[in-house]
Amino acid sequence: MNTNFYCVIMAGGIGSRFWPISRNLRPKQFLDILGTGRTFLQETFHRFAKILPKENILIVTGSQYTGLVNEQLPNLNPMQIVAEPSRCNTAPCIAYATYKILDKNPNATIVVAPSDHLIINEAEFLSIINKALEFADTNESLVTLGIKPTRPETGYGYIQLSHSGKDIIMGEAYKVKTFTEKPTLDLAKVFVKSGEFFWNSGLFAWKATTIQTALKNLLPEVNVLFEQGVGKYNKPEESDFIKKVYNECLSVSIDYGVMEKADNVYVFPGDFGWSDLGTWESLYLQWNKDDQSNMVDAQQVILKEVSNSSIAVSKKEKLVVIKELDNYLIVDTDDVLLICPRNNEEQIKQIMRSVDPKYL
Amino acid sequence: MNTNFYCVIMAGGIGSRFWPISRNLRPKQFLDILGTGRTFLQETFHRFAKILPKENILIVTGSQYTGLVNEQLPNLNPMQIVAEPSRCNTAPCIAYATYKILDKNPNATIVVAPSDHLIINEAEFLSIINKALEFADTNESLVTLGIKPTRPETGYGYIQLSHSGKDIIMGEAYKVKTFTEKPTLDLAKVFVKSGEFFWNSGLFAWKATTIQTALKNLLPEVNVLFEQGVGKYNKPEESDFIKKVYNECLSVSIDYGVMEKADNVYVFPGDFGWSDLGTWESLYLQWNKDDQSNMVDAQQVILKEVSNSSIAVSKKEKLVVIKELDNYLIVDTDDVLLICPRNNEEQIKQIMRSVDPKYL
Repeated sequence: MNTNFYCVIMAGGIGSRFWPISRNLRPKQFLDILGTGRTFLQETFHRFAKILPKENILIVTGSQYTGLVNEQLPNLNPMQIVAEPSRCNTAPCIAYATYKILDKNPNATIVVAPSDHLIINEAEFLSIINKALEFADTNESLVTLGIKPTRPETGYGYIQLSHSGKDIIMGEAYKVKTFTEKPTLDLAKVFVKSGEFFWNSGLFAWKATTIQTALKNLLPEVNVLFEQGVGKYNKPEESDFIKKVYNECLSVSIDYGVMEKADNVYVFPGDFGWSDLGTWESLYLQWNKDDQSNMVDAQQVILKEVSNSSIAVSKKEKLVVIKELDNYLIVDTDDVLLICPRNNEEQIKQIMRSVDPKYL
Repeated sequence: MNTNFYCVIMAGGIGSRFWPISRNLRPKQFLDILGTGRTFLQETFHRFAKILPKENILIVTGSQYTGLVNEQLPNLNPMQIVAEPSRCNTAPCIAYATYKILDKNPNATIVVAPSDHLIINEAEFLSIINKALEFADTNESLVTLGIKPTRPETGYGYIQLSHSGKDIIMGEAYKVKTFTEKPTLDLAKVFVKSGEFFWNSGLFAWKATTIQTALKNLLPEVNVLFEQGVGKYNKPEESDFIKKVYNECLSVSIDYGVMEKADNVYVFPGDFGWSDLGTWESLYLQWNKDDQSNMVDAQQVILKEVSNSSIAVSKKEKLVVIKELDNYLIVDTDDVLLICPRNNEEQIKQIMRSVDPKYL
């Protein structure tokens, strides 16, 4: 294992996806939604621990969640839990973690990953990550992983490679031509057909010094704040210093703030059974459904004339009896019951706007 | 108050109606389904306590429910709780209570009532009950209360009066011509139109000695078993004796066993806002619905495009969010969630046959 390889896991989400299973108090990354026996955070940690040193894995999360991180990953040393006082999107999050790592190891090369994605083909994934890390380690470039699209998805941004679509090889580096916004369905179909467009996975790799340079040049208003903390990172003074930074820092994504402006961006296309599992619908797609095309995440269930539906019940011993429903989402937890047509996450977001915060 | 007037409340049901709110462990009569602040049993007790002495009110129930009765009516003396070792329908239940009362007071006149009906116009009801008791007290007759039908209901038996339909007066006694079985819809329409047919309320009144005679003549196989206990009633020996009786006793309703055979049956027709509340549908009919015709028995609810539905949630603080449903029944309790089309109790009964008994 290369002791210069680090991983930053971004675990700050507050649970707006998969409501009402996922909550502000215990958001998605801290849940075992798929019933694997590990939460998303744990799976992500253990996945990267196969290819780089455990003690080089940092978890960035909201300060209100550090307890949960400790609970789920009990053997971390304090430096590994990076507590953000508030949410400022991914660029400040990455800047903060980078400066902490630079303080320990200026030769670090870092893979940055979300904490709550699903990876089915882990061997293939880790192979590409290794290649991406090696490439980033030996090039002054910002590397991202692109996912080979399996459908004209309108919920993701796409990355266009500087290469014709015909002979793109998975796990090789290609210069990025452009990042796109979330497309319309027609445009998504064009993207997928061309073979040159890949889903933006939210995974990155770069040398610590390379991303630091990029931040300095492309997001100076963010970089200057964190730069002022050099000498305070990984010391008692870090906490107070960071509180002041987050008070002032603007909220911006690494994609918008850096990747879309940089000229040294490379993408490694991959196909490893990936899902951001960002919606109930994506869970439905992943699930092994019954012979009426129902996703059933419940232990005691009686279904009569129920089809094309998603059923998720948090309490194992609860009996759910449903008759005559087609294409519905039913989620039952201790204090919230949701029943709505399937495959319409927008309606759930709308509903969440009128829900008393204690239920969020 | 007439100290010869008694009341026998039949509270032995095991909760198959209103499942999953009503359970074997805590059946309907012990619940406050309407949210009045009293359970059905308590309402029934207090209703009759307005017109006859409290200590003359007996509750007949299954032996597994005596604790619940004590909990809900804490000031009864032991004689007032009549514990049946098993369920044998209403004739044995009535025989048992009658012999206990005869032991105390041979001059008793008794009103027999179910424990779980809804009476909206209580003053009118009590007025008719009083007339029925007075009539029964001074005639050797078996009196029943008939409910003026408000629709061609196929779920009840009917009582036909010996009188043309045109000038029947509520609260007067009429000789009964016949009892009918539950009719088809067409027949029910004919019944209702004629004005001579009334719903069988399950309420009765008679002198203790009159019903004893009727049992002797018309149901001797039941009567002889209970008659053997004379001298044991209201004494320590009663309990063992009754266990033996219920081991042997056949299960039969008072309607089938006595009322349909007797020739001294009178009916008092009444119109006092009665419902046996025997189905979720009857509850829906009673409820004050919202402007989308939903019955909502829940405290925290967000409904979008939901209509003609019944929603009942046992946990007050639970949020229920429903979008786009029409004509459904949704019942949520701690350990059972039921979602099915409204107004089809038969389907619920069918479903209950495949449910693990621990959920019943």
